[in-house]
Amino acid sequence: MQQIAQPQPVLESLPARRPKAACTLGIIGGGQLAKMIAQSALQFGCDIVVLERNDHSPAASLATETVIGDWDNPDSLLILGSMVDVITLENEFVDAGSLAALERFEHPLWPRSATIRIVQDKLLQKQALAEAGLPVPGFVAAHDKASVSAAARQFGWPLVLKKRRNGYDGKGNATIRSAADLDAAWAQLDGDKNALYVEEYCPFSSELAVMVVRSQQGESVHYPVVETIQQNHICRVVKAPASVPADTAALATNYARRAVEAVNGVGAVGVEMFLRKDGSILINEMAPRVHNSGHYTIEACVCSQFENHVRAVLGWPLGSTAMRAPAAVMINLLGAGHGLGTPHGLAQALAVPGAHPHIYGKARSVPGRKMGHVTALGDTVEAALANAQQAADLIQFGGKS
Amino acid sequence: MQQIAQPQPVLESLPARRPKAACTLGIIGGGQLAKMIAQSALQFGCDIVVLERNDHSPAASLATETVIGDWDNPDSLLILGSMVDVITLENEFVDAGSLAALERFEHPLWPRSATIRIVQDKLLQKQALAEAGLPVPGFVAAHDKASVSAAARQFGWPLVLKKRRNGYDGKGNATIRSAADLDAAWAQLDGDKNALYVEEYCPFSSELAVMVVRSQQGESVHYPVVETIQQNHICRVVKAPASVPADTAALATNYARRAVEAVNGVGAVGVEMFLRKDGSILINEMAPRVHNSGHYTIEACVCSQFENHVRAVLGWPLGSTAMRAPAAVMINLLGAGHGLGTPHGLAQALAVPGAHPHIYGKARSVPGRKMGHVTALGDTVEAALANAQQAADLIQFGGKS
Repeated sequence: MQQIAQPQPVLESLPARRPKAACTLGIIGGGQLAKMIAQSALQFGCDIVVLERNDHSPAASLATETVIGDWDNPDSLLILGSMVDVITLENEFVDAGSLAALERFEHPLWPRSATIRIVQDKLLQKQALAEAGLPVPGFVAAHDKASVSAAARQFGWPLVLKKRRNGYDGKGNATIRSAADLDAAWAQLDGDKNALYVEEYCPFSSELAVMVVRSQQGESVHYPVVETIQQNHICRVVKAPASVPADTAALATNYARRAVEAVNGVGAVGVEMFLRKDGSILINEMAPRVHNSGHYTIEACVCSQFENHVRAVLGWPLGSTAMRAPAAVMINLLGAGHGLGTPHGLAQALAVPGAHPHIYGKARSVPGRKMGHVTALGDTVEAALANAQQAADLIQFGGKS
Repeated sequence: MQQIAQPQPVLESLPARRPKAACTLGIIGGGQLAKMIAQSALQFGCDIVVLERNDHSPAASLATETVIGDWDNPDSLLILGSMVDVITLENEFVDAGSLAALERFEHPLWPRSATIRIVQDKLLQKQALAEAGLPVPGFVAAHDKASVSAAARQFGWPLVLKKRRNGYDGKGNATIRSAADLDAAWAQLDGDKNALYVEEYCPFSSELAVMVVRSQQGESVHYPVVETIQQNHICRVVKAPASVPADTAALATNYARRAVEAVNGVGAVGVEMFLRKDGSILINEMAPRVHNSGHYTIEACVCSQFENHVRAVLGWPLGSTAMRAPAAVMINLLGAGHGLGTPHGLAQALAVPGAHPHIYGKARSVPGRKMGHVTALGDTVEAALANAQQAADLIQFGGKS
């Protein structure tokens, strides 16, 4: 007598091995954006493989495997490519030339390396937007200090000197209020080593953002226009929808769609804009990926930006971006001090009605690092803001500051 | 010159290791229920460890680690216990005596082994409900065929003979229409080996279910009363809310809360009931865990059953169970044939507006196996049902049947 008492279908009695999933999605980068992309992909039965520098990224615990390696190393990218059906990324800093290697070996990569090449260089990005007839602040390449002085004659002071690559959350920017600041700004951004450009300084009344998700065939959907509030150049609060007239919202949406088309974006793309006192809008910059200004969509919209990004890069139909509540507010949780990445006060925050805390699971808190966020829905932005703020104030990372 | 150009805070320059998460949750079992529990826990920054018989369960890819072992083996449970802060389970079939070993070693286990011991034995469960004054079909232990005949004299034919343990989805039940069926039913359930009991046959007009989530302190929240539609004893459709008068819904909710208290349930508990033609309600059975009748809460409620289960077992405040839409319908996706567990038609289903497919990522399809589900929200149950059905009809597992 064998131990198996009942006859079993042949397939059932085969040794169980991990089968091929509906689709295996490779994500370059393992931060919170990758984690939230992975959450959506897992719902559809996909497997996830992450490429990161270490094995304990926020997305690692959702991945079947982590390829430990450098994003910019074509070999690491090709290992990832060999393990997955489709590759996407969570940040635009990956070397576009290395990404092109994936395409040469016919690994499906969305967005394309050509999109990343343009968007990751803020000067090329601005040029692409301007060539598409979209309004951007005045800008010129800053090859040397003399070109900054020439820009001042064209645009007037102040100017904003920026690194063309790898700037984020205000890192890589320096405001030059007068000629006297030029040397210090040039030194701060190490202009002799880094490629820089200079932009007209644009006063604005508020900052708007629109998330667009574009399919491989060029269809796109967009989320509501939101208002983003930055502190120290870091996004702190997102209010959805933005309190702007309908024609302003329509204009912002039109610009955002056209901006994504201008760089042939596929998947989620965040477009950040300045709303000026006269009601005009300038495009500030875009990110060819899921974006902090769209985190509220997890609870607030029928399909989140993460789900629609997954749908887009896997070639599946895009889903509804409609809001499920009249208003939503998201507040980022930033590290207050140096310490472990575990939150204090989470249980207290969970007692706030309607507040949805998200903890990214980062290894360590650093002052200003994005450690999580809280979203609250409401009948008004004010009501949602009050709940989100109450919960966010209760959660601390890295010791009470 | 060192390669690190800028001074870094000491903590930043330490070698990065996986830190202790906000909480590490151990889940006994790695199926779709564990997967959906893990999804909620990951949002809060928790780590997950799963105990399963193999390394490729639906929940495995969300877990930091899988302990490969048998649920009923105290050694496997204690290994899991040593790795986590809190332990919960996705099914009630784990041997209660083995679970008690976790408690003896002071590993926090929710629900308690005493709850599982009662609920996993349907006779003890029925006795506990009856002792609490809750309405249940007439029942007696079936030690032998003579006790079944005695039950027939008390309740009349037909009767339902049931295994006390390990029955699910109709497996372990046999309806006895007359004395002539008794021998066959006894043999079918192997009554000389398995502990059986016998129940009055209760005609009903519909089946209702209520998900209750109860905290460690005994506070509880409940979700709306839903109607469940079974085919071949397997849940196929859940309609939320059930189309019943308010007093019927109130009665069902009252019974469900009291049933959970009767077994000292903690975490999510599903309570299934029969609604009879005269408007009376009988409790059919309960499951001390997240439950198929509550899957719709992922999209339809402010906090899903999975999130509230995590909150309960981690000792955190319970969240709102309010629905975000007037109606929701969930349809289970069952395997049509034997084959791999990858779905056909998922992309087509994603084109159905408002349909939310969930694919569990099981290795293999087996006829009748739960492979995924689709939820749709709507202004009416009928509208939600139409969308959910359209999407569900497009998804096939294991070959077109």
